[in-house]
Amino acid sequence: MIKQERPKDECGVFGLYKHPEAAKITYFGLYALQHRGQESAGISVNRGVDDAIFSHKGMGLVPEIFNMEDLERIEGGSAIGHVRYSTTGDSVLTNAQPFVANHRHRSYAVAHNGNLVNAHILKEELEEQGSIFQTTMDSEVFLHLFIKNLIKGDYESAILKAVSKIEGAYSMVLLTCKGEIIGIKDPNGFRPLALGKLNGHYVLASETCAFDLIQAEFIRELDPGEIVIINEDGIRSIRHPKAAEHKSLCIFEYIYFARPDSTIDGKNVYEMRKAHGRRLAQEAPVEADLVMPFPDSGNYAAIGYAKESGIPFEMGMIRNHYVGRSFIQPTQSMRDFAVRVKLNPVRELIKGKDIIIIEDSIIRGTTAKTRVKALRELGVKKVHMRISCPPHKFPCYYGIDFSSKGELIAAQKSVEELRDYLGLDSLHYLSIEGMLEASGVKNPEQNFCKACFDGNYPVAFDPNFTKQCMG
Amino acid sequence: MIKQERPKDECGVFGLYKHPEAAKITYFGLYALQHRGQESAGISVNRGVDDAIFSHKGMGLVPEIFNMEDLERIEGGSAIGHVRYSTTGDSVLTNAQPFVANHRHRSYAVAHNGNLVNAHILKEELEEQGSIFQTTMDSEVFLHLFIKNLIKGDYESAILKAVSKIEGAYSMVLLTCKGEIIGIKDPNGFRPLALGKLNGHYVLASETCAFDLIQAEFIRELDPGEIVIINEDGIRSIRHPKAAEHKSLCIFEYIYFARPDSTIDGKNVYEMRKAHGRRLAQEAPVEADLVMPFPDSGNYAAIGYAKESGIPFEMGMIRNHYVGRSFIQPTQSMRDFAVRVKLNPVRELIKGKDIIIIEDSIIRGTTAKTRVKALRELGVKKVHMRISCPPHKFPCYYGIDFSSKGELIAAQKSVEELRDYLGLDSLHYLSIEGMLEASGVKNPEQNFCKACFDGNYPVAFDPNFTKQCMG
Amino acid sequence: MIKQERPKDECGVFGLYKHPEAAKITYFGLYALQHRGQESAGISVNRGVDDAIFSHKGMGLVPEIFNMEDLERIEGGSAIGHVRYSTTGDSVLTNAQPFVANHRHRSYAVAHNGNLVNAHILKEELEEQGSIFQTTMDSEVFLHLFIKNLIKGDYESAILKAVSKIEGAYSMVLLTCKGEIIGIKDPNGFRPLALGKLNGHYVLASETCAFDLIQAEFIRELDPGEIVIINEDGIRSIRHPKAAEHKSLCIFEYIYFARPDSTIDGKNVYEMRKAHGRRLAQEAPVEADLVMPFPDSGNYAAIGYAKESGIPFEMGMIRNHYVGRSFIQPTQSMRDFAVRVKLNPVRELIKGKDIIIIEDSIIRGTTAKTRVKALRELGVKKVHMRISCPPHKFPCYYGIDFSSKGELIAAQKSVEELRDYLGLDSLHYLSIEGMLEASGVKNPEQNFCKACFDGNYPVAFDPNFTKQCMG
Amino acid sequence: MIKQERPKDECGVFGLYKHPEAAKITYFGLYALQHRGQESAGISVNRGVDDAIFSHKGMGLVPEIFNMEDLERIEGGSAIGHVRYSTTGDSVLTNAQPFVANHRHRSYAVAHNGNLVNAHILKEELEEQGSIFQTTMDSEVFLHLFIKNLIKGDYESAILKAVSKIEGAYSMVLLTCKGEIIGIKDPNGFRPLALGKLNGHYVLASETCAFDLIQAEFIRELDPGEIVIINEDGIRSIRHPKAAEHKSLCIFEYIYFARPDSTIDGKNVYEMRKAHGRRLAQEAPVEADLVMPFPDSGNYAAIGYAKESGIPFEMGMIRNHYVGRSFIQPTQSMRDFAVRVKLNPVRELIKGKDIIIIEDSIIRGTTAKTRVKALRELGVKKVHMRISCPPHKFPCYYGIDFSSKGELIAAQKSVEELRDYLGLDSLHYLSIEGMLEASGVKNPEQNFCKACFDGNYPVAFDPNFTKQCMG
Repeated sequence: MIKQERPKDECGVFGLYKHPEAAKITYFGLYALQHRGQESAGISVNRGVDDAIFSHKGMGLVPEIFNMEDLERIEGGSAIGHVRYSTTGDSVLTNAQPFVANHRHRSYAVAHNGNLVNAHILKEELEEQGSIFQTTMDSEVFLHLFIKNLIKGDYESAILKAVSKIEGAYSMVLLTCKGEIIGIKDPNGFRPLALGKLNGHYVLASETCAFDLIQAEFIRELDPGEIVIINEDGIRSIRHPKAAEHKSLCIFEYIYFARPDSTIDGKNVYEMRKAHGRRLAQEAPVEADLVMPFPDSGNYAAIGYAKESGIPFEMGMIRNHYVGRSFIQPTQSMRDFAVRVKLNPVRELIKGKDIIIIEDSIIRGTTAKTRVKALRELGVKKVHMRISCPPHKFPCYYGIDFSSKGELIAAQKSVEELRDYLGLDSLHYLSIEGMLEASGVKNPEQNFCKACFDGNYPVAFDPNFTKQCMG
Repeated sequence: MIKQERPKDECGVFGLYKHPEAAKITYFGLYALQHRGQESAGISVNRGVDDAIFSHKGMGLVPEIFNMEDLERIEGGSAIGHVRYSTTGDSVLTNAQPFVANHRHRSYAVAHNGNLVNAHILKEELEEQGSIFQTTMDSEVFLHLFIKNLIKGDYESAILKAVSKIEGAYSMVLLTCKGEIIGIKDPNGFRPLALGKLNGHYVLASETCAFDLIQAEFIRELDPGEIVIINEDGIRSIRHPKAAEHKSLCIFEYIYFARPDSTIDGKNVYEMRKAHGRRLAQEAPVEADLVMPFPDSGNYAAIGYAKESGIPFEMGMIRNHYVGRSFIQPTQSMRDFAVRVKLNPVRELIKGKDIIIIEDSIIRGTTAKTRVKALRELGVKKVHMRISCPPHKFPCYYGIDFSSKGELIAAQKSVEELRDYLGLDSLHYLSIEGMLEASGVKNPEQNFCKACFDGNYPVAFDPNFTKQCMG
Repeated sequence: MIKQERPKDECGVFGLYKHPEAAKITYFGLYALQHRGQESAGISVNRGVDDAIFSHKGMGLVPEIFNMEDLERIEGGSAIGHVRYSTTGDSVLTNAQPFVANHRHRSYAVAHNGNLVNAHILKEELEEQGSIFQTTMDSEVFLHLFIKNLIKGDYESAILKAVSKIEGAYSMVLLTCKGEIIGIKDPNGFRPLALGKLNGHYVLASETCAFDLIQAEFIRELDPGEIVIINEDGIRSIRHPKAAEHKSLCIFEYIYFARPDSTIDGKNVYEMRKAHGRRLAQEAPVEADLVMPFPDSGNYAAIGYAKESGIPFEMGMIRNHYVGRSFIQPTQSMRDFAVRVKLNPVRELIKGKDIIIIEDSIIRGTTAKTRVKALRELGVKKVHMRISCPPHKFPCYYGIDFSSKGELIAAQKSVEELRDYLGLDSLHYLSIEGMLEASGVKNPEQNFCKACFDGNYPVAFDPNFTKQCMG
Repeated sequence: MIKQERPKDECGVFGLYKHPEAAKITYFGLYALQHRGQESAGISVNRGVDDAIFSHKGMGLVPEIFNMEDLERIEGGSAIGHVRYSTTGDSVLTNAQPFVANHRHRSYAVAHNGNLVNAHILKEELEEQGSIFQTTMDSEVFLHLFIKNLIKGDYESAILKAVSKIEGAYSMVLLTCKGEIIGIKDPNGFRPLALGKLNGHYVLASETCAFDLIQAEFIRELDPGEIVIINEDGIRSIRHPKAAEHKSLCIFEYIYFARPDSTIDGKNVYEMRKAHGRRLAQEAPVEADLVMPFPDSGNYAAIGYAKESGIPFEMGMIRNHYVGRSFIQPTQSMRDFAVRVKLNPVRELIKGKDIIIIEDSIIRGTTAKTRVKALRELGVKKVHMRISCPPHKFPCYYGIDFSSKGELIAAQKSVEELRDYLGLDSLHYLSIEGMLEASGVKNPEQNFCKACFDGNYPVAFDPNFTKQCMG
């Protein structure tokens, strides 16, 4: 497996209320959300004919995990699904979601995107009461809380009580053994969760690109702290008592995670990236023969940069579309193979040229360093790099794997030191102001979580927190 | 499996002379050539310690077929490899190459890219003499001829006699049980075959992108009719007696097949495509808000068109990188799924706009039609399409699967009829003159095979020929 | 899958304390216990270097589930293992054992053979307190109880409190995250559990045949209600407060389940079966040309019967050793295929003969009926059947899948009716007295559970009990 | 993989003429013949609707190679099948049968059991004429000869000319692209080939146990040199011009290879083995407590020996039915694992006893030695061994893998030396006279090949022959 140095969103979630092909459509929903997690995937279904919840989960990509037979066996009714990229070492089937548990002959399934910052405290409290845990997933903690409260009340109050206890980022879908689908977004709205409709059936998905594939109609993004309950009475919203006035939508969803054809909270991802590229050209112009991205993530900012600067846009690195996830160890002579196999520079295009590379972010810097070296070896004259977001100086506690501060190279080195480390002629980042202003969002300062850039964390967390429990 | 309507080159070949990691490097060579054939792959090795030739072949992609253990078992010595896309219905393991046969305790392996136009006649002649056939591959026919002549002479004369009999397109690599590697290009030079060197070991590959991945040095393209014999005495070239004065290099290699980072016969594929795009902008200008390709094949011509026309370049269709080859059948409600799953348009970018689509070719037209329809449904105002090559009006008999004339929509409809069929506001193709002039090649008229555009076939063939026997 | 009509023991368990090849030896232990469960298998390991418990579980046979790489990844320390045959419909990976759970940063793994008769009641109690369940396994119930008590005390007291709550049959091995191995046998000693030693390392196994394969030394069978705690201080036994004076060892272990080369509680299984066969010959003699078993389970009683009666022993039905578990559906013309494919009669041996068939038990009777019919079709003159145990008239609630009374043909039909149904010339069962007396055990009436024959259940159970929760 | 030291027949063949479920029934035929070859299997079908022959072949056991989908794709018409155990190092898919080749738009498939002793000479002759070979199978040599002659004549004359050239042992089935099935037995009748009928459709199989499974009626064994041609005109026999007066049926088929429920040439295998056991008891009596076989191959002779001697028959070694073909490497401490895992002695039965082991043959002696050692370690007093055939002193050139003389321990050691080597108290072999007389066949001296015992080879062969080419 090619070591991935890029940050990874932990999950994508999907839910569909009572549809004759619920399992299959959930499969395709996950297919469209595959970029949000490639480690494991799962679908849970209540077929509406009894109280059973059937699940099928596995390690790997969506098409590797499910086959027609599996889906047909559980077809019909309501379904939720999940794709996962693990941020912990526990890359095991046990941690694949949806998480399913039984209580008093009733089953519940939960799929979760985000990270609870107080999961470890809640877990300890539950363990004091004798609860045992089989996974390291936040969803298990949530389900314990939900069920403890369910003993004393109805679904609605149990959910409200459970969400009152948990803190952090969570966009969740919950399936009950009655086929109800409940969508939950945390009070700060860190992670996206959109509501749509497919021929009259409500659908929830982390990103709108899932709606496009299944040809569902987009209705709206859920509000921060909104809980939608979908059942035979239709759809009903309740609110988290502490729902924030301003949302804290993760701006890195626009910069890197989300698919460019998705629209989050009214803003298209492609357009946002292009706007960041234009702003970057204004903030950090430089003379060169061509502008080129590290594809595919840098493509759109590069288009914006090229347009604003008037310097020609080129796709100077060619992607090998057949790179599998596991393969033969390269030979000694094949230096930097893992990086080269994915992108090969077009020698004739760049030889003797001054080039501007547009990259969307630098986390650890090792891949970028190797790529710059490869370009130099082919005879590039000058290599300028422009990053379409500010330097990543702070870890994320809300579901993105920026691991620790120690792994964030921008937290360790100044921009000049980093330029030198990467072997560049110049290096510039987009400013925080530029990023916010170019976003086109009103009062952007108040409506985004940008903690990874400035360290202002919207939800407090335990600084001694170690990531042991997450979604 | 998503039905592929695009033309497909049948093969990629690779050969490496005596290297301690010959099998593994051949594996990576095939990895880089994977775009030339995704149906089956194989590697044959003579380890240099005995006269045996070990082969490992399978159906599927290169990383699916080989594992470390397989390769280590056959590691060392000389190796040849092959990737294949079948143009016949015989998509079976039996037809995977290299083709290996034994004669007088000696083994030979052949990997072939191209198509013999007289294979059926040769086969009949051989059958009259009692030869039997186990495959439908041209390589089997060649090996019969080679060995019949070997009884009466040495390698060199046997090869010259065998190639004197066969007609058509053939870039072949032959491995003998002594570890010799022989590279053969047909007298007209239809298909590419490049010579390189890896730390002193000669290497042959269909495209230079294979050299880039294994970090081999490119030496030169083989001449039409050139036969290189690589053995312990070094490398030696002999010539086909009827080697043509002018080559007939398949121009469609530049337009569609080859990877943009490959350089064929001194011309870089990316640059060629961009030049075609620029010329297309001169020949067929139109006012619009943006220029966009159907990725990835249209990317480079689109960049050229945008630059020449001054109209902004955008990547308005997003590719799903996780589309597997086999998956669940979509539901009734998911119309045109096979096309949509691969490319999703960015609604916000194109809504209400006039757009120019750049496509590299139209073969059957069905995918293009569906994509145009999808764009219209998202609210595009005007859709202009520009094709970066002339209309495909004639089948190819030299190894490209343009099937029959009946399947070539440009042979059935006028440009205006096709514009109407595809639902376009305007449609223009690059002219033959434009294609040739923009190529930057001297005397292009004499140095390319462009039979699929004008019907001038450089090598005669039997019009009743049915494709039963190919490489 | 050939529908299996024979009763099936649910499980085999194995445990090994601190051995450098603990995982691998556990693998081989399970290999020898495979006959006790072919549905799923699992191994859990604490490597002794940290508090982690690693598990590998899967559906299928032991060699299908584990590979060298899996085992080496978790090698060393203490290990427990489990093979399972599901008696419920929940034949899913979730229910594969060992069952592992975490509590206060500590992990525990449990493997269980038997069935708790009050699991449903305990589960309800736990659920009232907010516990949630992810499986339908008894081990999950036990672990909840154990951990609830562990909050208030040490291991020893927690185990004693937990076992005081559970009722039924349970031979369990427990692995703690400190590498301790705890073996637990229920107060009545329904299921076997033997203690051995392998080069100084203690080992526990359901049957002694596992010791033979790994070349461990047999020490002794655990006593009813005995709990052995194996840790760095050596081995220590504590007793269940209600340990019964007399054991209730399942006599069907001797008759059918256990391997003939195992010795349970001092009595060899092969010898026991032969003794039953001899007694059967005394109780139900008949003139015939030959005595033959339905192999392999009837082999040993047939040898005893033949010896006692003086009638020649023959192996008149040949077993196909290559019968896989899943295969092609036979054609219309192949009647009774599932039965025939496993055993084919030797026509020449039996034609025109009077034969005595020895069978160890009849549960549903359908297979026996088909086999008798096949014998008749080959020209057998008279077919007498002798069963080496009494008629099965009562379901088992202690871990054997005699499903319900409705499926036990001997509960539905008199011996004469059954003889007629099976198409036999005569049919006789071993008497309960005969079975007990021939066992060679002192006071057999008090030392065996023979509830399936006489309905005297040693441990009370809820008659409305439905098997929802088991080991 | 447990190294198999027993001799192995190379193949089983099967053929069925025009049946709507030809492929599926051939599958079941091979299933019943699986004991004749576990390395690879294949089915070839002409569906009767065109001239195509479809094949499916693979490495492994029959149920591993075929699935319902494969069979349904090629269902209907005439089919032949083959199971193979390789006697050469070329254990590769290329050598899986049926061997299929094409000539003048016609296809032929051949499945072969036996070994041609002049294949290497014929191959050289063919190679001088320019033929090339892709496999090391005898069937390829036969098909070359057949087709060379077919150019000049019809099927019948082509087959007669081809069989006139080949020498050795061959029981073959040939499928033509017209759906004809041709069964061929060599002039000496070394290998069995039986004719049967399934609901009016002719069927051919190596052994009658295949007829039992598919419920076909046995008609007769083919005569030596008989060629049956089955087509729309019915069945017709022609004779090899040199068909021998006396057959040379391989007596080792009865002793070891064939299934005991098969009947070859009018003699049932089970009965033959029992007769050999009885004779052995007469020739080599000894006092002991019990007689036991090494199961399963020694079972039947042991029953005969026990009966004749009056010493009790016991099954003192228990077979593990779940031994897979590939698994984890045992640990250091597990001595002689490969032998122990398959058969475990019943300690209680044999301790302190004098025992007689009945074995059907000793080839290399290593397994027997280990088993005797295991018995001694469990406290057996005296171990006598009786072998139910004479000593193997000569290699087989007719299709059985007794490799070379050097590997036959009886060719290297006297009986007394071997007794000592194996650690036995006494060792006796059945005499050649005893073997023949007990067979119950008239003029047995003239009707069996017993070359492996006495070196009288019915068909001459080149002593320098190295097995390079076989069936």
